[in-house]
Amino acid sequence: MKRPPLAVTLGDPAGIGPELTLRAWTALKDRRHDFIAYADLDQLREIADRLHLPAPRACEPEQAGEIFSQALPVRPVPLPEPARPGHPAPANAAAVIASIEACVRDTLAGRTGGVVTNPISKAVLYEQGFRFPGHTEFVAHLTAHAAWDGPRGPMMMLAAPELKTVLVTIHLGLRGALDALSTEAILHTARVTLAALRTDFGLASPRLAIAGLNPHAGEGGALGREEIEMVAPAVETLRAEGHDVAGPMPPDTMFHAEARARYDAAVCLYHDQGLIPVKTLNFHGGVNTTLGLPIIRTSPDHGTAFDIAGRGLARADSLIAAIRLASTMAENRQSALT
Amino acid sequence: MKRPPLAVTLGDPAGIGPELTLRAWTALKDRRHDFIAYADLDQLREIADRLHLPAPRACEPEQAGEIFSQALPVRPVPLPEPARPGHPAPANAAAVIASIEACVRDTLAGRTGGVVTNPISKAVLYEQGFRFPGHTEFVAHLTAHAAWDGPRGPMMMLAAPELKTVLVTIHLGLRGALDALSTEAILHTARVTLAALRTDFGLASPRLAIAGLNPHAGEGGALGREEIEMVAPAVETLRAEGHDVAGPMPPDTMFHAEARARYDAAVCLYHDQGLIPVKTLNFHGGVNTTLGLPIIRTSPDHGTAFDIAGRGLARADSLIAAIRLASTMAENRQSALT
Repeated sequence: MKRPPLAVTLGDPAGIGPELTLRAWTALKDRRHDFIAYADLDQLREIADRLHLPAPRACEPEQAGEIFSQALPVRPVPLPEPARPGHPAPANAAAVIASIEACVRDTLAGRTGGVVTNPISKAVLYEQGFRFPGHTEFVAHLTAHAAWDGPRGPMMMLAAPELKTVLVTIHLGLRGALDALSTEAILHTARVTLAALRTDFGLASPRLAIAGLNPHAGEGGALGREEIEMVAPAVETLRAEGHDVAGPMPPDTMFHAEARARYDAAVCLYHDQGLIPVKTLNFHGGVNTTLGLPIIRTSPDHGTAFDIAGRGLARADSLIAAIRLASTMAENRQSALT
Repeated sequence: MKRPPLAVTLGDPAGIGPELTLRAWTALKDRRHDFIAYADLDQLREIADRLHLPAPRACEPEQAGEIFSQALPVRPVPLPEPARPGHPAPANAAAVIASIEACVRDTLAGRTGGVVTNPISKAVLYEQGFRFPGHTEFVAHLTAHAAWDGPRGPMMMLAAPELKTVLVTIHLGLRGALDALSTEAILHTARVTLAALRTDFGLASPRLAIAGLNPHAGEGGALGREEIEMVAPAVETLRAEGHDVAGPMPPDTMFHAEARARYDAAVCLYHDQGLIPVKTLNFHGGVNTTLGLPIIRTSPDHGTAFDIAGRGLARADSLIAAIRLASTMAENRQSALT
């Protein structure tokens, strides 16, 4: 069966999203990672013209597969105001949001195979009344009433070929993160991760490593008791359920090549514990993916980059990786659930 | 002028230190990184015999240079009880400490050029009344009354060819580290580091990066105010003093190759912030060095490894790197101060 194309959102049209979408199409047009951009047709045609690429074509998701090898398929989301690179326009905020909603809606309906989100500027959207901390929470909201058998996220995974980490706490200051951590939160993150490794990453027997919080994982309590009181009980519960889980791991010795070979994903307790190793190992190729949702959702691991938008400097590595990963995950999930 | 040899301590004789010392000698005997082991002659002769190496020879530091290319020079520190790999003996604790003291004393007297410490077992030493958290503090104590013009440490640097990080807080739980951080502590760490980069690493115009504490370096206060209230004032003070200092840097985006090219060392606020990136990039080659002391001191970045001691499995990479680095640092310091 032919798989439906992925849906790629507009993102902020004043950022690097539109040019990256075209670059990603150039990189992927001869491969089997079809996608359709939910974006402004005029803007994409103008950029394609500048880059000497074929003009993108408006179509329904069902036609994207036929068009993809010749031109970027587009489901038009017209912008009220022409986009000016580097200058986000409040008047376009509604279109940015409408693109995300349409991508999610079509994916829930099975017309598209998953959602890949281009970067948005939260500050601009907040001014227009958007009330979610980011894509992750918004997509979770839009899919909250859809059926989903597995443990439900959203959980944020940063995935690179070298390492996958999943965060128990995300966008909290470090003190706030310490207060938010609990055995329950670790357990829930681990369960969503294990289910996603099976369903979306095709691993029959996933192996998880769970990080400690303190230097040397607390050194038996001398450098903090969170490992004994909070992390170890989560590890024991998961093992009792039959999962292959190691931890609490000393955070500084769990991310080198030999250590990484012993697990499929690492559960990290705070933002930088999980993001420092992935971004240190692979700065351009990381993909942000949301686990535990009724739909597949990935995203490049960078922002709108207003400072270089429209100047042809932005690297599409992360968006290309996000599309490839979403494609693989969608395929795995389809096999697992059918 | 012929430089004096480095002094290499005994470390715990039941750990991997003795075999690593001989392996390091094998790797370095034809290079210009002379050293002398302050260790038990019988134990080293026995290991050398097993490894088919020339018998180590007892000598004074002044003779080490003549002997080094033919045999490991040893300043004997007899053990009251024969060492048994994997089984640390309380009766030998005094010899472990005496070796460190002799190395520091001879280095202060100019008979040896710097101290390289083999790993010790703190638990064993504590039982015998040792009252320092580790080598770093003990060596600082032993050199406290020696003259030193620069800003005084001890500060811990973890150095690998890819990255050097220096820690503002070291062996504290994460909550304790948050409470111990201050603008003053950051300033002091940065000043010791800048002085050491000049004197010991031979950099005329060192460039420092100082990490933020929170995700995205606090994102303008939305994810924590420590960057605004604590880190930025330290950066401004250092810049006003004429130093090349960047920060507060978002912790997750400061350690990839392009970012590292923009600074010589990174000041990190807590243990794992500084150790995760170094150990992820280079697990076997990291060197722990103590900055801001009247003597050069380096150490391999691993422990006694009682579980593999005496089995020929331990890798000498880190001890060799520690000896090379101490040798370079001693040479740089001698040039800088004369």
